[in-house]
Amino acid sequence: MLVGDKNYQSIWLDGTDHSVVKVIDQQRLPFFFEIKELRSVDDVFYSIKDMTVRGAPLIGAAAAFGIYFAALEVTSATNVQLHLENAARYLKSSRPTAVNLSWAVNMVLDRINTRNDNKSISDSALSAALEICETEKENCRKIGINGLPLIETISKKKNGEPVNILTHCNAGWLACIDYGTAISPVYLAHEKGIPVHVWVDETRPMNQGARLTSWELGEAGISHTLITDNAGGHLMQHGMIDLVIVGSDRTTSGGDVANKIGTYLKALAAYDNKIPFYSALPSSSIDMGLSDGIREIPVEERDPEEVTHIQGLLGGKIESVRISPEKTPAVNYGFDVTPARFITGLITERGICKASEKDIKKMFSDKFD
Amino acid sequence: MLVGDKNYQSIWLDGTDHSVVKVIDQQRLPFFFEIKELRSVDDVFYSIKDMTVRGAPLIGAAAAFGIYFAALEVTSATNVQLHLENAARYLKSSRPTAVNLSWAVNMVLDRINTRNDNKSISDSALSAALEICETEKENCRKIGINGLPLIETISKKKNGEPVNILTHCNAGWLACIDYGTAISPVYLAHEKGIPVHVWVDETRPMNQGARLTSWELGEAGISHTLITDNAGGHLMQHGMIDLVIVGSDRTTSGGDVANKIGTYLKALAAYDNKIPFYSALPSSSIDMGLSDGIREIPVEERDPEEVTHIQGLLGGKIESVRISPEKTPAVNYGFDVTPARFITGLITERGICKASEKDIKKMFSDKFD
Repeated sequence: MLVGDKNYQSIWLDGTDHSVVKVIDQQRLPFFFEIKELRSVDDVFYSIKDMTVRGAPLIGAAAAFGIYFAALEVTSATNVQLHLENAARYLKSSRPTAVNLSWAVNMVLDRINTRNDNKSISDSALSAALEICETEKENCRKIGINGLPLIETISKKKNGEPVNILTHCNAGWLACIDYGTAISPVYLAHEKGIPVHVWVDETRPMNQGARLTSWELGEAGISHTLITDNAGGHLMQHGMIDLVIVGSDRTTSGGDVANKIGTYLKALAAYDNKIPFYSALPSSSIDMGLSDGIREIPVEERDPEEVTHIQGLLGGKIESVRISPEKTPAVNYGFDVTPARFITGLITERGICKASEKDIKKMFSDKFD
Repeated sequence: MLVGDKNYQSIWLDGTDHSVVKVIDQQRLPFFFEIKELRSVDDVFYSIKDMTVRGAPLIGAAAAFGIYFAALEVTSATNVQLHLENAARYLKSSRPTAVNLSWAVNMVLDRINTRNDNKSISDSALSAALEICETEKENCRKIGINGLPLIETISKKKNGEPVNILTHCNAGWLACIDYGTAISPVYLAHEKGIPVHVWVDETRPMNQGARLTSWELGEAGISHTLITDNAGGHLMQHGMIDLVIVGSDRTTSGGDVANKIGTYLKALAAYDNKIPFYSALPSSSIDMGLSDGIREIPVEERDPEEVTHIQGLLGGKIESVRISPEKTPAVNYGFDVTPARFITGLITERGICKASEKDIKKMFSDKFD
């Protein structure tokens, strides 16, 4: 997508130096637009862990390049199998909830013939990582195309009054190489001239909504308003929201959706106010091995300091202020699980399906045995 | 309640100078414990508007002292009726949602015989304001006594394992002269040696949970953990919450509860997970004139900068950091309304009643014609 007048993805291979992968540093946004270079497995691990890169599809792509960096380290003395498996285990441990991470790592591993020469190994890894980027980009574009009619239909019913869409966290292009998942249909609607307005949950503790979604929509010239995570229910009660679209970090075979903490509360409010609630996701986010999201999806617990301290801009610098008494204990769960019964549908690269085992298996029968 | 080894209320008349009312400055907590002096109607107006004092019972008491300050201004040349009515209208406009504010102002006005001499007028106003403080204190103590059995019953069922209580915003003693509403039963349980643990919603945008409830509970030595407003649903899904208690800024005759924005989302989650959800309130918070909370209760819209900027401690000073892009628009609704159907019961000074018109009118039949 455009940043100023230049087109960007959230991750890309350096055009000349193929030992360098570049990412937009999402810890510095929206205050500073900076590119960060990744050159090693460690660089990838820490960029995922500290949320320099975040968003389910993007951390999958980044981890795929992580395996490529591991492949570049292979010498004639390396036990290739062991080396790559160690790198894979390490990368997968950077964040536990999004399934794209292990999906992407496994996909790259599968493409490598460890008996090949070093050059072939790293070439295979690179080509797999690049393929993941292209596939996820294309999947996101298709999610936009498949989700667009939802917005068009509401727009027609409202006689062209702006369609009010609430989203939680950031499931825009920053999270997804390009286009986004939840925001992809919004971009396409805006391109088509359909008036849309996005209510942006700030998304505590890391404020991905306030920092990233607001920034993305601002760059794209899409009307939006920032709200606290507490406000969505009130807006829905007063008819100020027509549609909720969120992303997904992991979707079970039955259609339960693990997404950024607080998503479940918005789904409950949408359900109570009869507002359609969709999760937009590429099939790489579906974990067919799981059936009960609440019991089975591992929910990341992050540093409590992300709750007790908040980062923002002060005097031209990013500073961290403490918002609670010095000794107050805090916990920081990163995700929650929205049961399928509160989800109107899943917007995928193949179309929209119900959040039910029957419909998911029907739409993705070839992908799961 | 004790702060260190000294007993405090959140508001009191100066012991020697009766033209001064003192309050704990809640904008400076938890970083600095400071007492602020109020000496005029304007002082009271701005202390309510800028949230130096906040919480439904406390702003009622502060506004009552505001009418007292207006009464002190009366001279032989004053049109007393007009002067007091102007002060009343002004004070009532400081915050629209909590009904205690107009209830308290009207109560003081009713006690003043405007044909009396100046000294009698100000004496009547003072005595009415002090009576409101004493009554609300006593009501909060009774709310504690009436709510305590809820905690005791759960404690017995759990064989003395800590009872996990979630609360939103601050409805402790800082909000209420003393004891608190939602937290009053928690204080009494703790005093009785019943193990309790409080999950404290940070309560964006003004972080009354992170700043005030955490501080109160810390001072009282009550086990607690700070969480983001997004986290409660996840905790409930995982059996980590036994009981939700919140306050109320305005309760309709049918039992709808206007409380700090985000309360409704927690009520929905409690309902979905079959967890009892109570609102604790003195009868001064009931507005028998209203029947449909969502349509009829005025919801305050505050400065968007409270959303785009967050205050906290940095380098020993309270600083404000910006968390979103410079031009991001934001809105800031202060309250939402939880429909009665999601409320297990109301804990009042007279006992616990169902959130229904029949039960509320039965319990408070003498108060409402």
